[in-house]
Amino acid sequence: MFFASDNWAGAHPLIAESLVKEASGAAAAYGTSDLDRRIEERFNQIFQREVAVFFVGTGTAANSLALASVARPGGVTFCHSEAHVTADECGAPEFLTGGCRLVPVEGPGGKLDPTTLAAAIDRYPPGAVHQGRPMAVTLTQATESGTVYSLAEIEAIGEVARANGLPLHMDGARFANALVALDATPADMTWKRGVDILSFGGTKNGCWCAEAVVFMKPDMAADMPFIRKRSAQLFSKTRFIAAQLEAYFEGGLWLELARHANAMATRLRTGIAASNRGRLAWSTETNEVFAVLSKDAATLAESRGARFYDWPVPQELPNLLGENDKLIRLVTSFATTEDEVDRFVDALG
Amino acid sequence: MFFASDNWAGAHPLIAESLVKEASGAAAAYGTSDLDRRIEERFNQIFQREVAVFFVGTGTAANSLALASVARPGGVTFCHSEAHVTADECGAPEFLTGGCRLVPVEGPGGKLDPTTLAAAIDRYPPGAVHQGRPMAVTLTQATESGTVYSLAEIEAIGEVARANGLPLHMDGARFANALVALDATPADMTWKRGVDILSFGGTKNGCWCAEAVVFMKPDMAADMPFIRKRSAQLFSKTRFIAAQLEAYFEGGLWLELARHANAMATRLRTGIAASNRGRLAWSTETNEVFAVLSKDAATLAESRGARFYDWPVPQELPNLLGENDKLIRLVTSFATTEDEVDRFVDALG
Amino acid sequence: MFFASDNWAGAHPLIAESLVKEASGAAAAYGTSDLDRRIEERFNQIFQREVAVFFVGTGTAANSLALASVARPGGVTFCHSEAHVTADECGAPEFLTGGCRLVPVEGPGGKLDPTTLAAAIDRYPPGAVHQGRPMAVTLTQATESGTVYSLAEIEAIGEVARANGLPLHMDGARFANALVALDATPADMTWKRGVDILSFGGTKNGCWCAEAVVFMKPDMAADMPFIRKRSAQLFSKTRFIAAQLEAYFEGGLWLELARHANAMATRLRTGIAASNRGRLAWSTETNEVFAVLSKDAATLAESRGARFYDWPVPQELPNLLGENDKLIRLVTSFATTEDEVDRFVDALG
Amino acid sequence: MFFASDNWAGAHPLIAESLVKEASGAAAAYGTSDLDRRIEERFNQIFQREVAVFFVGTGTAANSLALASVARPGGVTFCHSEAHVTADECGAPEFLTGGCRLVPVEGPGGKLDPTTLAAAIDRYPPGAVHQGRPMAVTLTQATESGTVYSLAEIEAIGEVARANGLPLHMDGARFANALVALDATPADMTWKRGVDILSFGGTKNGCWCAEAVVFMKPDMAADMPFIRKRSAQLFSKTRFIAAQLEAYFEGGLWLELARHANAMATRLRTGIAASNRGRLAWSTETNEVFAVLSKDAATLAESRGARFYDWPVPQELPNLLGENDKLIRLVTSFATTEDEVDRFVDALG
Repeated sequence: MFFASDNWAGAHPLIAESLVKEASGAAAAYGTSDLDRRIEERFNQIFQREVAVFFVGTGTAANSLALASVARPGGVTFCHSEAHVTADECGAPEFLTGGCRLVPVEGPGGKLDPTTLAAAIDRYPPGAVHQGRPMAVTLTQATESGTVYSLAEIEAIGEVARANGLPLHMDGARFANALVALDATPADMTWKRGVDILSFGGTKNGCWCAEAVVFMKPDMAADMPFIRKRSAQLFSKTRFIAAQLEAYFEGGLWLELARHANAMATRLRTGIAASNRGRLAWSTETNEVFAVLSKDAATLAESRGARFYDWPVPQELPNLLGENDKLIRLVTSFATTEDEVDRFVDALG
Repeated sequence: MFFASDNWAGAHPLIAESLVKEASGAAAAYGTSDLDRRIEERFNQIFQREVAVFFVGTGTAANSLALASVARPGGVTFCHSEAHVTADECGAPEFLTGGCRLVPVEGPGGKLDPTTLAAAIDRYPPGAVHQGRPMAVTLTQATESGTVYSLAEIEAIGEVARANGLPLHMDGARFANALVALDATPADMTWKRGVDILSFGGTKNGCWCAEAVVFMKPDMAADMPFIRKRSAQLFSKTRFIAAQLEAYFEGGLWLELARHANAMATRLRTGIAASNRGRLAWSTETNEVFAVLSKDAATLAESRGARFYDWPVPQELPNLLGENDKLIRLVTSFATTEDEVDRFVDALG
Repeated sequence: MFFASDNWAGAHPLIAESLVKEASGAAAAYGTSDLDRRIEERFNQIFQREVAVFFVGTGTAANSLALASVARPGGVTFCHSEAHVTADECGAPEFLTGGCRLVPVEGPGGKLDPTTLAAAIDRYPPGAVHQGRPMAVTLTQATESGTVYSLAEIEAIGEVARANGLPLHMDGARFANALVALDATPADMTWKRGVDILSFGGTKNGCWCAEAVVFMKPDMAADMPFIRKRSAQLFSKTRFIAAQLEAYFEGGLWLELARHANAMATRLRTGIAASNRGRLAWSTETNEVFAVLSKDAATLAESRGARFYDWPVPQELPNLLGENDKLIRLVTSFATTEDEVDRFVDALG
Repeated sequence: MFFASDNWAGAHPLIAESLVKEASGAAAAYGTSDLDRRIEERFNQIFQREVAVFFVGTGTAANSLALASVARPGGVTFCHSEAHVTADECGAPEFLTGGCRLVPVEGPGGKLDPTTLAAAIDRYPPGAVHQGRPMAVTLTQATESGTVYSLAEIEAIGEVARANGLPLHMDGARFANALVALDATPADMTWKRGVDILSFGGTKNGCWCAEAVVFMKPDMAADMPFIRKRSAQLFSKTRFIAAQLEAYFEGGLWLELARHANAMATRLRTGIAASNRGRLAWSTETNEVFAVLSKDAATLAESRGARFYDWPVPQELPNLLGENDKLIRLVTSFATTEDEVDRFVDALG
């Protein structure tokens, strides 16, 4: 009953198999092999336009290097106050952009609100050297709260960014989960709505380690080969990342795995809602579930082998918990089984 | 006939198998799983003392973060002028140490010379704020020139470092190749000779992606968890690195693979020396061979499918080449076959 | 009628004279002259203990280098949300600390609240590598809101810092104004209340350019000579800074100038409060006055030659302004005259 | 008998007087006053074109921020191996460019040699991500060796830079001394010969603290306001720098002061050459003199009050010194007197 995080899972057998297949033979290093090229091409198809793709090792690297590619002296990036870049990356975005700042912006449901965002940007009048200057907007899809921006919501954020001359970055650590939740195409959810740079994550959805920075306009990527190398993210055997993605994309495996994870979350939500031992903290649409449990129920579940994280109560929901309650986060993955879900619900009491 | 680099090879089947085995099941992320712990323990045994181990994704990361762990304002690190840190890492050590400098020091055979090193350090008198101040010495074992420091040579460098109060780092991207060339133990080649921090490389010797920073004195590693995370090198599924290393160490596989690579290089050296179509540029002791070929012979070999790199002539050997000659580098790996070597020698003319 | 900022003023005649006196003669450069030493000694007397003093060129430099001296990988510094370091320094503290983060904390009256501060620090549990880790607390005395921390308030913040093992930095750009407002000694207002490092500002109080980082415990300053030099803040003719401070301290000039500036602010507050054309936005204790004016009155005053800045309404006072009001900031200085104050009040309508 | 450095001198009386004049009155801060604007205009006249001027506090800041303005990820700057940027700035150029590298290039007489420079740049083939990539060339005029690049020599370096698409920076800490030595105009010595960015130094030639970064093409300076501010080099009372430069330029004072310093150096060279107690190490053309003295003569001179620095022997002159000799550097300034020079020569024996 592992619901701590989707990165506690291993790798899908087909992805493992693809890695094994690449074990033999020799090929050019540092991202120049035929396989690397082939997967880069695959991204063009998936996004229905020519994109520039840079494989990196971690989601933190993808986010940080994406922001480094648009960094400028005195630059500030606007993000949601609960975004992974600001909450969970130990200052890597600041460090790897050479000291640029993240400005947290509040918004309900883990999502940036376009009006609040615009107001935050307006606090930086052009030429005001003392405050610094806007350099980017970043949003997370799916969010850290398990919610999903609708296409219209992404577009609204994209319009604020464009009106201010700012590139829009999407942290897509759970890109596939959001995509299938919306039943949208990758193009729909990105450049058609104003997204310029995407952190494309495969690790949480069945790969071992497969992340990429995807530039929707390749000419924005001119410095990226050097940014990646000087940040120690150019792997010599990059084809081990490419090989994972080959299997990941093959026959739509990635979408299938995300659908499974989301479905398991739905089952979990249903189970919790139907039980009388807990309730949903808020509604979610992907593979994350936030539940309010009594402390006793939580302790019991843990004693029965359930693994999950306690979660801080969002500022916007100050009255969420009763005195003996706690908020927990449950994450399903490609590897979660129906049985595991059902056992968890049973374990609550 | 792939001799371009040992990182053009894939992965050893046993290492691939170990990865597949880890594909199923769930485990704690970010380096806290049982497997991670077990492999860390394994390093203790291998180095015959308690060490602190940090898995990272690339050799450049290992070197840069090792230096970052001893960085201080105005700090300079002394390295050989042909060392990977200064010649091939796009400034990553400077960037990831927050702007510290690498000072190249000349020495024959790709090795630091203790006297020259001591003289270079002496140019930084204590308290001389204008020049900056020494912060570390780094040497590469095996060197970029295919040579190996003897244990006494490492000790001599270690003494210069210690006399100046400087930590000694070893870039061990080809640690195993050097180890078997010297028939030494890991302890012999590191802390017993004054090495404080090691970049332990597995990628070039049969892994896909398995590098580690190893601190011989764990209390030097206090900042390292944060250095690694803010540099985007903390993998969520670190156990995929640990799994590779599990197979790598099992039954001494790593030493066996290095012995094979070195043996193939010996065969290559013998073949070239015996041919009348080229000669060895200098004597090497590991899996790198440097040969002087006529340009015609080199072109012919390439047309027959041989892959290798042209190499710049070392400053210390200004008369190495005749008018129609070129210097090339050939690297063997765990995957190189005797047949491949023999075909290369045949291909020269 | 210049009330835009105290840094619009020139320099006090005695300070100008001291500079002229130093124009002739030669002396050792880079802070090693007799005069430099003498002024460093003077700081020891002023602070009633041995301190380490580093002259720098700007207040932003003093703050940034003070924080750089306690920086560590993944480090975060807690400051008030309106503090100069976060609101007005274009990311210099982040840049010059190598990418460390400033975490803004709310508090009424421009002051950190110890309970809120402690709660903010508690969000960083020891060893939690994802969030980063606390490295310092910084407070501003006098604050950007014109208020002053009482000695007990500084002590309370100092206790929170100490309880968390964090150094406490004080941004003293208006140190003298606070000192005379409290009628305290420098020792009282700093190390006796838990302050470890002080940005000591002279520029806003009658110098041209005289700032210093003062370490209350000299052994915390071991890296500072290198931090200052690599940040391009070691002036060759540092004695031009020392000469300013010589006159600044002579006969208590600095305290006299600060008393004058504060007295002019009191006169201004009295004048505005007594007029029926504006009111004080909140009570202040130093040389800054915040007033609510009708937009018409503000426009009129500007047309009559008054210079001041519009100011953003603090989050905690959402209902401060009526529909036709604006909030302005007025700053007096050592050079402000009674006549200037009176003319301003007259100019309002 | 102060010949340690031209930054041991104070300030010229007319410059001191100009500062005093600016002490009274109020003016807009942060470089926006009328005086600031007027001096910026003055630079346009001096350079016979529209330039962009940024006042900063130190020569190290001018050099570092000039390079920061053309920095890019993985960037390397080519400089002479004895240049101030690499020999005397404690890594500030590396730190303030976010980790870019300085590559030292050898050349006789302290000057870059165009052929050697071109060869050094050629070691960075376009797109070679591992080595990094060229970002700038910097030369020092006058050099650290007391020599001066002829206009043709600057042009030759400029051509190498242009052929490689690189901006050319000139470290002009002793700009005036070189200018009068060549009897050239500022335009002749800079943009007409390919210089793009100049560190314009006034401090060593009679100012207290007056340095500027001058962009010959203002559109290269778009980021510079932010670079300067985030590096803590935007002074609030910048007009104290402008006031110094006002007097410095008035009536050609700056050229007169430089001519005087150079003449004193000529007198010193003549005196040493004519004495039988020392000899010139090499010929110089500005206000620096390098002399070979017997150790006894040097000790005697010091005991009689002479102040100078020992100097390392250049690599290119391995046989410069006899067994009992030492190499010393003597620097004259605007404040050096004939009497001081003559007493020094007498003091040698």
